[in-house]
Amino acid sequence: MGIDPGTATTGFGLIRVSGNKFEALDFGLIETDKNGTTGKRLENIFGQVTSILKKFSPDIVAIEKLFFATNAKTAMAVGQAQGVMIFAASRSKIDVVEYAPGTIKKIIAGDGRADKIMVQRALRKVLGAKVRSKAKKRTHFDNAADALAVALCHAIKLKGGEKNG
Amino acid sequence: MGIDPGTATTGFGLIRVSGNKFEALDFGLIETDKNGTTGKRLENIFGQVTSILKKFSPDIVAIEKLFFATNAKTAMAVGQAQGVMIFAASRSKIDVVEYAPGTIKKIIAGDGRADKIMVQRALRKVLGAKVRSKAKKRTHFDNAADALAVALCHAIKLKGGEKNG
Repeated sequence: MGIDPGTATTGFGLIRVSGNKFEALDFGLIETDKNGTTGKRLENIFGQVTSILKKFSPDIVAIEKLFFATNAKTAMAVGQAQGVMIFAASRSKIDVVEYAPGTIKKIIAGDGRADKIMVQRALRKVLGAKVRSKAKKRTHFDNAADALAVALCHAIKLKGGEKNG
Repeated sequence: MGIDPGTATTGFGLIRVSGNKFEALDFGLIETDKNGTTGKRLENIFGQVTSILKKFSPDIVAIEKLFFATNAKTAMAVGQAQGVMIFAASRSKIDVVEYAPGTIKKIIAGDGRADKIMVQRALRKVLGAKVRSKAKKRTHFDNAADALAVALCHAIKLKGGEKNG
């Protein structure tokens, strides 16, 4: 399971690896009520992450590591959400690995500074062209794609290689 | 209950307010194993915060808000810990309020840029001279004092005043 934590919406993506075959099982967004208190929002995130973990029982959770954010308030909010997600995984006895954005791009698209389009192109190549069309909305997929990317990044790294590298 | 979140150690402090009397009930540190995984550390923090909340059933949790940190990695770690603490309070049905460091100093010591010594002097004045001597170690008190300060800050604010203001 890959997670791309954000302030308002967090992307998640689940992939299955069978031999050299990579398959997207599910992806989507973890959304919370913007008007809720921080506590309620974090409870909501914990609940949603825990139920996805229960449904799919992933071997591992790979989460995008954020080194900086444009402003400190955003960084703190993302850090808080990230903390609850890692806590949720740990509570469900699932290990968590963290990947820096540059590492994900390098492993997925062969370039640490690849843009969104390059990453999504690489994702389609590996997970199949149908992945994109499953998403209801463009923005929906943009967020979830980053989560699929971090999941795929870990899977490829486990196999000891880089796609398109 | 006041909480001063840090990376390795988090201070906590509990105060009781009866009329115009402020009393320190307990204070100390929430410490985690530096060598543990992030998940285990966050589980540990959740467990410790939850048991303090159960023991004292505070009316509210006041937490020091961090707007920035010297480096982004530290900010993220503090944000993660803070998220799990707010989550723990919310799970225990206890409201959380956040105060910026400057606000705490202003309300406690009458000066938004007061130093540690000034804040601790103001704390002793309000909570009694014995507070300091209860701490086993100097560093122990330094961390917990900030937590008592944020608890006291909220209590004073509720009464609509500023001590030493």
